[in-house]
This record gives sequence, structure tokens and C-alpha cells, in this order.
Amino acid sequence: MPKRLLLIQPYTFAPDSPLYVAPRDASREARLINFEEYGHLLADTEWDVHPGPVGPFGDSFVETRGEFATVGVLRLPMVREACASGKWDAVVLLGGGDPGFAEAREIGQRHGVPVVACAHAQMTVAAMLGNKFSVIDVSEAHNMQMYNLVVQYRFTERCASVRCIDAPLPRPSRPGACNVQAEKAVVDAGRASVLLDRAVAEAEAAIEEDGADSIILGCSAIYWMRPHLERRLHAAGWEVPVLEGYSSAIEMAKLLANLGAAASGLAFPRDDARRWRRRKVF
Amino acid sequence: MPKRLLLIQPYTFAPDSPLYVAPRDASREARLINFEEYGHLLADTEWDVHPGPVGPFGDSFVETRGEFATVGVLRLPMVREACASGKWDAVVLLGGGDPGFAEAREIGQRHGVPVVACAHAQMTVAAMLGNKFSVIDVSEAHNMQMYNLVVQYRFTERCASVRCIDAPLPRPSRPGACNVQAEKAVVDAGRASVLLDRAVAEAEAAIEEDGADSIILGCSAIYWMRPHLERRLHAAGWEVPVLEGYSSAIEMAKLLANLGAAASGLAFPRDDARRWRRRKVF
Amino acid sequence: MPKRLLLIQPYTFAPDSPLYVAPRDASREARLINFEEYGHLLADTEWDVHPGPVGPFGDSFVETRGEFATVGVLRLPMVREACASGKWDAVVLLGGGDPGFAEAREIGQRHGVPVVACAHAQMTVAAMLGNKFSVIDVSEAHNMQMYNLVVQYRFTERCASVRCIDAPLPRPSRPGACNVQAEKAVVDAGRASVLLDRAVAEAEAAIEEDGADSIILGCSAIYWMRPHLERRLHAAGWEVPVLEGYSSAIEMAKLLANLGAAASGLAFPRDDARRWRRRKVF
Amino acid sequence: MPKRLLLIQPYTFAPDSPLYVAPRDASREARLINFEEYGHLLADTEWDVHPGPVGPFGDSFVETRGEFATVGVLRLPMVREACASGKWDAVVLLGGGDPGFAEAREIGQRHGVPVVACAHAQMTVAAMLGNKFSVIDVSEAHNMQMYNLVVQYRFTERCASVRCIDAPLPRPSRPGACNVQAEKAVVDAGRASVLLDRAVAEAEAAIEEDGADSIILGCSAIYWMRPHLERRLHAAGWEVPVLEGYSSAIEMAKLLANLGAAASGLAFPRDDARRWRRRKVF
Amino acid sequence: MPKRLLLIQPYTFAPDSPLYVAPRDASREARLINFEEYGHLLADTEWDVHPGPVGPFGDSFVETRGEFATVGVLRLPMVREACASGKWDAVVLLGGGDPGFAEAREIGQRHGVPVVACAHAQMTVAAMLGNKFSVIDVSEAHNMQMYNLVVQYRFTERCASVRCIDAPLPRPSRPGACNVQAEKAVVDAGRASVLLDRAVAEAEAAIEEDGADSIILGCSAIYWMRPHLERRLHAAGWEVPVLEGYSSAIEMAKLLANLGAAASGLAFPRDDARRWRRRKVF
Amino acid sequence: MPKRLLLIQPYTFAPDSPLYVAPRDASREARLINFEEYGHLLADTEWDVHPGPVGPFGDSFVETRGEFATVGVLRLPMVREACASGKWDAVVLLGGGDPGFAEAREIGQRHGVPVVACAHAQMTVAAMLGNKFSVIDVSEAHNMQMYNLVVQYRFTERCASVRCIDAPLPRPSRPGACNVQAEKAVVDAGRASVLLDRAVAEAEAAIEEDGADSIILGCSAIYWMRPHLERRLHAAGWEVPVLEGYSSAIEMAKLLANLGAAASGLAFPRDDARRWRRRKVF
Repeated sequence: MPKRLLLIQPYTFAPDSPLYVAPRDASREARLINFEEYGHLLADTEWDVHPGPVGPFGDSFVETRGEFATVGVLRLPMVREACASGKWDAVVLLGGGDPGFAEAREIGQRHGVPVVACAHAQMTVAAMLGNKFSVIDVSEAHNMQMYNLVVQYRFTERCASVRCIDAPLPRPSRPGACNVQAEKAVVDAGRASVLLDRAVAEAEAAIEEDGADSIILGCSAIYWMRPHLERRLHAAGWEVPVLEGYSSAIEMAKLLANLGAAASGLAFPRDDARRWRRRKVF
Repeated sequence: MPKRLLLIQPYTFAPDSPLYVAPRDASREARLINFEEYGHLLADTEWDVHPGPVGPFGDSFVETRGEFATVGVLRLPMVREACASGKWDAVVLLGGGDPGFAEAREIGQRHGVPVVACAHAQMTVAAMLGNKFSVIDVSEAHNMQMYNLVVQYRFTERCASVRCIDAPLPRPSRPGACNVQAEKAVVDAGRASVLLDRAVAEAEAAIEEDGADSIILGCSAIYWMRPHLERRLHAAGWEVPVLEGYSSAIEMAKLLANLGAAASGLAFPRDDARRWRRRKVF
Repeated sequence: MPKRLLLIQPYTFAPDSPLYVAPRDASREARLINFEEYGHLLADTEWDVHPGPVGPFGDSFVETRGEFATVGVLRLPMVREACASGKWDAVVLLGGGDPGFAEAREIGQRHGVPVVACAHAQMTVAAMLGNKFSVIDVSEAHNMQMYNLVVQYRFTERCASVRCIDAPLPRPSRPGACNVQAEKAVVDAGRASVLLDRAVAEAEAAIEEDGADSIILGCSAIYWMRPHLERRLHAAGWEVPVLEGYSSAIEMAKLLANLGAAASGLAFPRDDARRWRRRKVF
Repeated sequence: MPKRLLLIQPYTFAPDSPLYVAPRDASREARLINFEEYGHLLADTEWDVHPGPVGPFGDSFVETRGEFATVGVLRLPMVREACASGKWDAVVLLGGGDPGFAEAREIGQRHGVPVVACAHAQMTVAAMLGNKFSVIDVSEAHNMQMYNLVVQYRFTERCASVRCIDAPLPRPSRPGACNVQAEKAVVDAGRASVLLDRAVAEAEAAIEEDGADSIILGCSAIYWMRPHLERRLHAAGWEVPVLEGYSSAIEMAKLLANLGAAASGLAFPRDDARRWRRRKVF
Repeated sequence: MPKRLLLIQPYTFAPDSPLYVAPRDASREARLINFEEYGHLLADTEWDVHPGPVGPFGDSFVETRGEFATVGVLRLPMVREACASGKWDAVVLLGGGDPGFAEAREIGQRHGVPVVACAHAQMTVAAMLGNKFSVIDVSEAHNMQMYNLVVQYRFTERCASVRCIDAPLPRPSRPGACNVQAEKAVVDAGRASVLLDRAVAEAEAAIEEDGADSIILGCSAIYWMRPHLERRLHAAGWEVPVLEGYSSAIEMAKLLANLGAAASGLAFPRDDARRWRRRKVF
Repeated sequence: MPKRLLLIQPYTFAPDSPLYVAPRDASREARLINFEEYGHLLADTEWDVHPGPVGPFGDSFVETRGEFATVGVLRLPMVREACASGKWDAVVLLGGGDPGFAEAREIGQRHGVPVVACAHAQMTVAAMLGNKFSVIDVSEAHNMQMYNLVVQYRFTERCASVRCIDAPLPRPSRPGACNVQAEKAVVDAGRASVLLDRAVAEAEAAIEEDGADSIILGCSAIYWMRPHLERRLHAAGWEVPVLEGYSSAIEMAKLLANLGAAASGLAFPRDDARRWRRRKVF
């Protein structure tokens, strides 16, 4: 029986925003970036995509700790509704930086519905493939969100580094910022991309200097780089896997739904837990 | 010159709530629990207390991951206003569980204003005093919030255990729950308290079984236990320091304000960081 | 397109052995223990089961380091043949203790074929679900094999304990040994099982004393316990996931096959690696 | 009530030594290096400075393991006397390298008097401010003393590196050695300092290569660099805190004295401990 | 060519002390405790025993941090003289708690003479034999000295626990204290010993509760227990190695002398190091 | 009484192989590479050398995970015979990469015969000498074998790096490969060696960049470099010990044989262990 997955966007720009992408009445496929990269993984599922909350920061991408926490909390009611509806076998939190993931897992646990997120899924898969992974990511602020996820998810021994390509996301205070998602079109058109070059350079530095043997991508706005980056690294002689978040998260959602495993009720206890433990250790 | 501290409550119950404590027009001292424990530490400062946001969960204490994240985000505008006002040398986030702490530090860093929180301050001070601390705390759900703070703050090697006294906080779904804060009056009146007895038992188990050599308290609703717990443990022969959150946080705020140190701008980068680092490591 | 999985047994007893189970000409389903537990996970795949090498230890189960290493090496030619054949999208190494896993992954990497194993898959999934897992396992010798896998797979911080139920596997030198796999029939018949009772007791001890929030099973001869153990623990009030190896490994194989990811070529370099790194770090 | 602090020098040169600095009958302020950096932190205290033992190494600064251990032991009687006198609320051990610190804390614990030291205080404060700190320090031998303090204080995960500026301290066998403390006058006079330039270079390397997000200074002879180094780094765009030992130690002493916390009696047990624990763990 | 070893006592009681053991003019064999345990290991060496410094604490054994540091420094001139003399191929620091070991190694490095100590040698050998060792030791204060050695020697992941048998060493303030060294005669005479029984009990607890798979002894005053403890544990079914300090240290001294390896000059740099490294990491 | 050591080769080339070195009827000394480096360490022992299994890989050196596992298993019967014979006090497994070591220790434990191996011995000795060691090694594939040994032996915190000199071992698929063992003759003849130069360069990088304070050699085919590398590094001013495997292993074998310690029976349990432990921890 096909598993039913709800993909929830981290946030949406208002329709009148210059950063607004796909109309809400576009097809579900059109509302997902880079669909060609992972669409086939959804073929054996029943799925839909939820637009997520309207971002409260105007024409700014989410990049700071405060912005991540805020949209994370705004997404929780949607997670709660999805889990309570009985309509979904798993919830996939889209976007890099995993806003609201821990809280959403707590909700999912109560309903027996696995909830997955892109950075967590990538790190988990990367840890399956080798000894250490590095994160290629966009900016100082976003890097530190990734850094803190590595600590929270207890991957500090498995993460070789977070590497920055210095491409801070567009926001009003940064008028000339490169729209890194839009750079995809440049590369698709076969043209050179300084951003992609930098990602290649940092990935090679991660391999040669930091000890990385797999590469993951931090911000969802650069997930499109996955096949290009992998091809470039392979061409340079590095047999290194490169992961992006949506495919990793979708596959992890299917795995957990198939196993019937959401999250440990001891790690995410109910407020009315039936049993309690005298002690917890690290 | 005395340092100016703003203490911000994690959240306030609505005035018509049975859990509502002190009227907002009460004196600043009356609006702080256990003032006799740490009031003298404020004597050389200029201070005020902000009521924090009205909690959005009705007659429920904050206890789950979702609840902590939510009130944490609600407190951020108050932190931002305080830091931007130029009126304060440091901000003290009251309450156990440190809701919104990382995000508030990010704000503080931008204004050069140190922001401190109770669990973080207790763990930092405990780590000064010995090798390993244990957390005595109220319930499964609250325990796991503490657990996750230990991980995030990178104290896993210094935390011997989180110990539970099984006193879940009052909420409508838990009508018979003990009001642990109210138990203070019982003890102040010289009567026996099962809760305090349990805290003593768990602290002794932490010392004898888990390797703790100092004790901190998890939920602010049991901070009043500090002197009682310390006395009982000393009477039992254990020369073990017991800390509570408000005094630790106030002193840490003064220390940081005196040193003129808020937080590292590299750990909490601005979205318009002037310099960027190619890599971050763990 | 359905993924094609080859499941390879760790070893087979000789047809004349009293421990010989299913005839080689039995259906593929009949040749797999506990098929009812995970058979549905194979429904969307094309799969077969390979009998593995005939074990060189007579009527002894594999339990010591030397025995594991020996059957591990004997299984490698089968892995090599499967990977080279182009007939399989992934190889699933059956059995607890993961004999030959690292070497088999090395082979798989050369052919772009993911190879998975039961203990590694269980630990990986358990780490997705909570903070720490414990291993319930059969005997001192088998425990230490599991212990060493935890170290090799770098899960020491995530493994709360390896717990023993003192059920050493049958071997000639141990004539009265309980056939733990056969105990399944006892439980299926609704009768009490001391072995299962011990597993429950050790799992509860793992939860209450060691800090485990999920449970995995060590030896494949007790994989049948999964649903029983989970039910018993849930009945006791513990919302704790229990995993067994075959389902975890099958799902992990599908995930990796779907993502097109075998193993990092840097972690498992070819002898004719095209590029080399000056240094590797931990 | 102001706290009473006794600051104890690590050692003093003999009056006839060319390295002898301030006469013992100079004012307490004059007997402290870099007083302008931290003097204001003492304003709300009652304090005095003890000259410490006369160093037994002639015209050599303390730099090797043996020298540190020796002056550390020589300072203990002064700590004991200060703690037993009832005249002091805290003892501040001056100097880098923290000679005798663990032993002095043991003494302080018996009298309920907190004892603090410069490296320990800097590391503790640095850990409050970010993820990782680096130590800028003078020479190979002194570096390894700092290295060993990091290990003993259990900060290995929080220390990014110890960085050397290759300025070994004056000793007879090293006639041309730069007097690094004296270099302060050069910088105060507005002239260029190669030493300071090197400290800036190593601090930038610590930030860019080692992952440091705060900087501490190792040897007290370069504590004067703090404001200069911070200014230079800020001018280069790095929002990184730089700490020196005296201010950190003074503030930590005040914090501990205010909290009434000396050290854990379990970490520093009396020889006549009233209770004992069967086991200690790490 | 036989290696030449100088064994240096940690300290000696004054001749008029009731704790004074062997006259200084006794044979070298008579001046060593438990010679029958390890004497054969010296048979292929040329050796002598140095009485060490006269302990400055009267009729007290060394047990606290301050006492250890003090006798450690007092032993350094003897180490220096021995290393400089050219007469010895290695120096063995006798006694538990390793007073002055790091400083003595620094001296030895300068002369190319390996210096070994009992706790360090035991831990090193124990780590060769299994996964984790526990320390059986005498008292709270002595335990914490051992604890700190484990941290300094970076064995925290390999040490399961320090276990206490509550036998504080004789000192004037403790008139009824058991002379644990003297208890050897009781056991040699075939009589029951409560102390030894406790050591057995704690060793079994270390095995069953803490995960120890080898046992070392902390205080040299209980080194005599080694064969008895091992025999008792083997009789109870535990195939666990038990080590004492003198034999481990003697063998480690021979190994290092044979290999011509003293200590790394980078870990213990000379004050006039010829080369320096820009950074040191952990 | 001299200890009796059996040295077992990892594998031997067939007599008709171009890589075949010493005839089996050569003297025991002639059958050992670099005998002049460590022969004196055998002088006080009774020893012999066993040729090991004939390698099943034709004219290929062992370099991949699969090759190591295979020869490791082939060597076990020889270890078993040696241990059971009662003729040997210790077994020394020759060769880098330690094939079959864990399994051989399990055998040795049953007979009370210590079994040692070259990489394990080098790492153990290196850890005695300083804080961190680096491994200088030949090729990507061999590097990762060393990497995995570091993980298995739990030396990740003590190993600064594995450094590669890019000298893959001869095999038919690599016709032009340098015979690194044969390069010894070049250096012995006083001629320049690019390989040795590279080893020096990587060792210096390990010291200056990775934090190594001692150096060990990975593949036995470069063990001959030890004195040359040490001399070159000392000449460059680095007082750094360099170790090779045979001498370290021989000395460790003598140490363990002298102490009468094989391996912990709890770490390497018999299949008929007399006692069992409920839990094992990390």
C-alpha cells in the first residue's frame, strides 16, 4: 500500500513579494523546487505539498537563529493538523535548517507519525556512507544554524566541517545579494556559475583538508547543485557522494513509515507519560 | 557604576487564571519568586522585571518542546526592545528550560548586550565547581528539555544525569497535579514535603550512582528547594554545592556586563557579517 | 521501477546437521526466518535469497570473533558475484553480528551497489528515533561482537549498553543449550518463555538504568522477539521502539538504492583510486 | 557588602634581579601589571595583593612544567594562610599557567573560600561566549603548560588550538630574549610591535583555520595585548571577544563569592570526608 | 646488555616515625614493598632504589592534592640527578598517585631517559588488555587524585570507574586508621581481611555495573592485593586481569629503554626548543 | 628465563612469485625484513619466525579491506596451533594493518598467551610518549585500513592524522608501482629517495598542521624508514620519536609475557564463559 506523505514548506513569501515563486494554485509539482531531482522517489507514494506559513519577515529569506525559530513555531499547527488528521503516514519538513523539527517530532510521536527534515536526513544518510561529512552552505548566519543542528543531532564527531560559499540570501538590507536559487537557471542553461565553482572549491577543500568523505548541502536554495557538484567532483577524480535534502528526507520518511517507527516516546515524552524514568544519561 | 539588568519572565498567566500569581502592579520584588534567595545579589545593580509574554497555553505550565519553543519566540520582541533601548547592560531570561535563549543571545550580540539564562548559567557555574553535575527536575517532558539543553550547550561530558522527581506541572489535563511552586509554603512552614524528600533522594542517587559532584535544579518551580536541598545533603554528610537558576543567572549577567562581553559575533553572526570564514569545525 | 535486492544468509548448516532448517529447494519465503515480520517490505521489490556459505564449524552457531571473521570472509565471493552481475540494486547481508560487512561494502562501492547489514541498519535507524539505544543480545561472546561493531560504526556515544539474556547458542560443547530461534514456536503457541521474560527484564533495565530510549536486537536468532518485546514494553507503559535487523536492513537497502548511493569511495577506496588525499582525520 | 579579594602573585623576582619590577612597598596598584585594564572591576571590592613566593629560578621566568609545579607548591602556604585567616571572601591566583591551582582549590574548599586562576577563568568565560576558543601564547614550553591545563580542565572539545607567537621568556640561557611584558610600553607609545603583529596573525589563523570564535591569552606577560588585539581584530572585521586573565579571574572570584560557592567537596574531598562514594565516573 | 633502572620512592618517613618501614641501610630488596610480586622482573636489569625525599607531612601518608604536589616537586631533584648522571637507562617513579610524573618526564626527555610511573603504567597496560579498566582505591581524597590522573592521561573513555574501599591512610588526625599496607601480613598469614573482601566486592561491582574488563590498584599501599584479588575474582568465575603498579612500571621502563624512546620532545618541549609549531590541537 | 616468542608473517608470496623474497630455508634472521633495526631486542628471547599463509592474491600485496580480512583469517590456524602447543610465551603478528589481530587475541586469551600486532603496538607506545601521533602510510586503500584500526582500538582522540605518501603497493593491475620495500636498498646505498622525502614532508606536515608529537609507520613495507625519518626530522629540529612496528610489537610481547597478562577474558569471552555480565557499556 503506498505511503501517504505530506511535504510542508518552511514558509512562503506573500503573493506580492518579488521573491514569491509559484502560485498556490500551481500543480503540486510546480510548487516544489528541483522536482526533477527527486520526483521519481514520490512515484510510489501518495503525496501533497503544504505551502507552510507565510513568512513574517517580508522580502527576507530565513537565515538567522531568530528567523529560524520563528518560522519553526509557525509551522507547528500545520504539523499538528496533518498528524491528527489520520491522512498521512509521514510528514516531510521541507527547507534547509530544519526549523521546528524537534517540536514537530514531538507532535508526530503522539500520533505515531514520523516527521523528517532535510538536514537531519542528509546527515543521517551521510553517516551511513562513510566516516565524515561536510556541509556546503551559503552564509555565516546560515552556517551557524547548520552548526547548531550538528551539535543538537549529536553528529559533531561525524561532521568534518561546515564550509561557506559566501552567498548570503536576499533580504532588503542586502539589495545586491545573489539569488542563489535563481542561479540554477544559469547552470541549467549551460553557463558558468561562480557560485557553483565556489561550492566545488569548498567541497574539494573539505575532502583534502577537513577529512570529509561525503558532502551535504546546507541551505535548500542550493540543493539544485547536487548533481552538478557530484559530477564535477567525480570528474576531478573524487568518488564522493553528494546529497541534497529533499530526496534524503523523502526516503527517510518512507523508511520510517514502512517500519512503523515515528520517534521514541522516551526521547519525546508526552506531557501525560504513563511511565517515568528516575534518570536520563548522555 | 551599577550595572542595569532587565529580568524577563518566560511567560505570565492571564490575570483570570487560577495559576496567576502576582498582580502586574505589585512591586518588582513581589513579582519574583523566591526573592529572599537572591535579592541581595541585585542590591548593587539597577534592575527591573518584565512580565514576559502572556502564555498562549491557558492554564498550563510550559513543559513540552513545542511549548518551550513557542514562548521562546514570543519573548524575543521583548529582548529586542530591551537591547535596542540602550537602557540595560544585560538581560536575564528568567525561568527554567531557557526558552528562546540562543535566539535572544543573537539579538544581544548585535547590541553588545549580554543575555543570560538560568539553565545555561547554572551549568556554567556547576562546571566551575567540580567535575560533573546532575539536574534535579520535575517531569519526563521537562527532563528532556533539560537534556536537550545539555546537548546544545555541549555539556554532555560534564552532566552526570538528569534526575526526575515525578512532579509534572499543573495543566487542565492533569487536574490533580501538585503545584510544586506552592509546595514552598509547606516547607517554609516547617512541614514535611514529599517532593523535597524525593529531590533529596534523587540528589543522593546522583551523587552515589551517577558521579555528580554538584547539583542544579531544572524547573524554576523548584528553585525554592536550593537552600533546603543543600542543607539536607550537608546534614547527610555530602559537601556538595546546590545551585538554582536566578542567582546563577544574575551573577553571570553581572560578570559579562562587567567584562563588556556579550557573545561571540562569530558564534552568533549578523546577517550582514563583515567578514566570513571559509570553514567552521567542531 | 522496483528495486532488486539480493539477501545473503551469513552461513548455512550442512543438510545433515540437526541445526539445518529449511531445505535449499524450499521457497525463498520459507528459507527466511520470521518472514511474517518483514515480508511486506519486500512486496515492492524483486528479491531473492542466497544461502550463503556452508558454515565451517559443524553444528555450531557463529558466536566468537574468529567464527564471525571466518564466515565473513567466506561470504565475500558471493557478494562479489552479486555486485558484478548487474542483477541487483542492493545486497542485504542477513544475520546478526554483520560478518564481512566492511569488506562487502568495499566490494559494493566498486560496483555502485549498496550493501547493508542488520546490526548497522538497526543502529542507524535507532539513532534516528532518539538519543540512545541498547542492544538486547544472547551471550557473552556474541555481546562482545556487538560491542565491537558499536565501536567500529562509531556509535559509542549513542549506545547505552549491550544487555545479555544469557542464552548462549547451541554448539556441541554446550549440549543443553537452548535453541533460541526455536523458542519462537513456544511464544507463537501462546506459552510463557523464560527467554522472552529475560529480554523484557533487560530492556526495562536498559531503559531505567542505562538511558536507552530505543531497543535493538543483537543475534538474529532472537529477531523474532521484536513484536513481543515491543508489546510487552508498551503494556508496561514504555513508549519505546524495538527494532529487528531484517526489516531495518531491507528498508535501508531500498533507501540507498533509491538514492543511488552505495558507499563513499573515499571511505572505501579502490586499490586504483584516481585521486588521493594527503591526510585523513578522525 | 563589598567582597574581600586577595590577589596572590605567582612568584616575585628577588629585589636585585634585573627582572624585578615593582618595589614591595609600592602601592598595591603599582604592583599589578596592566592595572588600567581591570582596576575598575576591583572598585566595588576590598582587595590586596600578595607578592607570592620569591621564585627559586633566579633570573628566569617560569615556563617549563617543572618550574610551574615548583612555584605552584611554594604558593600554597600563602593560600592556606589567606583562607584560614577569615579575612578574604575569595583568593585570586595571578599569573598565566595557573601554578598550584588544583591544590589551592582543595585548600579553599576546606574553608569555604573560592580560589580562582587566570587560565581557568578565561576558558570558563570564553566557553560562555561561543563554541570554541584559541589560546594565543608565547613559547613551545609555555604552550604545553596551557595545553595540559585545557586537558585537566576538560575543555579539549572547546579549545580550538593553542597558538604560538614564538616569544620565549627571558632566562639566562636565552640572553637575547624579548621581554614581552616590556613590549607593552612600545605599543603604549604608539609604535609598531612585531610581537603584537604576530599575535594578530595567529589569532586570525585561529579564527579562519582552527574554528576559534573567541581568543584568550596564555602567558600573563602578554595580557596587556587584550585591548590592542581586540581592536585590531575588530578593525579587520572579526567580531570576536578577546579575554585576558586578571579581569576574568577577578569577575569569577566575585561571582563565586557572591554565590557563596567555593568548590565541590566531592571533587576536592577532605582527608576526613564525612561521607564516601563507592564509585566515581567520568 | 642489561638495562639500568633507578627506582625512586615517592617519599620516606623520618627514621623516628612509627610509619618508618625499612632502614635505609637495609638491602635494596628489603626497601621495596611486595618484592616477591615483581622482583623477577628486575632480574635481567641492573637496578637500585633511591629513598626519595623525606616526606614533609610528619606521620601522614600522602593523600591530598596538596600533599601529592608537594612530594612530587621534592622528588624532582633526584630525577634530575639520576637523568644527568648517565648511570641509568630509565627511571621508575614508585608509589601510587604518580607525584611529579609530568615534570619528571620533562626532565627525562632532555636527557633521553624514559621516566615511568605506576598509575600511568597500569592504565597503559590495562588499555592493552581490554576495553575499560576500573581503579580500586583507598579513600575519597586518594580517589580524586586517581581521577585527575585519568583525565590528565586522557584515559576518560577507557576508565570505567574509580572504586573506593573506604580505607583512608593513617595520619595523626585519624588515629584509628587501618594501616592498609600492614594488612598484607594478615592475608599472608591466611587470615580473613575485611579490606580485601571489600576490594573483591568493589572489583565485582566494577565488572558487573561499570563495565570494567580489567582492574588496576590505586594506592601503592594496596598493591599487595594484586595476586589475592586476581585469585578471588578468577575463583568467582571472572577471567579478569588485575594489575599493580610496580611490575607495570618496571616493564614499561624496560620497554621504553629497549626502544630508546623517552618522551616526545614536542609534548615536553625544552625551554630552548630548536623548532616551534604555530599551533597545537587536541 | 628467556621468553619464547613466535613471530608469524602475515602472508608469504609463492616461491615462483617475482615478489617472493627469502627462501623458506633461509635463516630465521634472513626471513625478517630490517632485522638490523630490532634484532637486538630478540637477543634475550628464544624466538622463531613462521612464514604465515601463502597469500591467495597472487602477485599482489595485501592492501584492501577484503585482502586484509582474508589473510587475517588464514593466519588464525597458525596462531591457534602456536598458542595450543605450549611452546610459546607470546605470539607476534608481523606486518602492518594487523590482519586477524582481534581474532588472534581471542585465541591467545583462551591459552593465556599474549598476542600482539604491529599497528596496535606502535599506537600504544606512541600514546605513552606524547599527546597525539600521526601515521605515515603508503596509499589510499592502506590508509583506510589504518584509519579503521585507529577507530577499533579507540585511539581516535590520540591520532592526529593518517598521512599518505602515495606509493601504492605492487600488484598486477599496477605494473609500474614502486616496490617500496626495495627502496630501502636505495637509501642504504646513500642515494636520494623520493619516497623518503615524501615521508619526511608528510611527517613535518603532521607535526606542524595536525598536532602530531610522535610518528608511526603504517605499512610494514616502509618500516625500514624509521631511523632515516627520525634522523631527518631531528636534523630539521623536531625532537619527535618515530616508531616502526616490529620493535614495538616485540617489546610489547615481552612486556605482556613478563607480566603474565594475555588479554581480558571479559573483552574476549570464551564461548563457554563461566560468568556473564548483564550489561556492557562504552
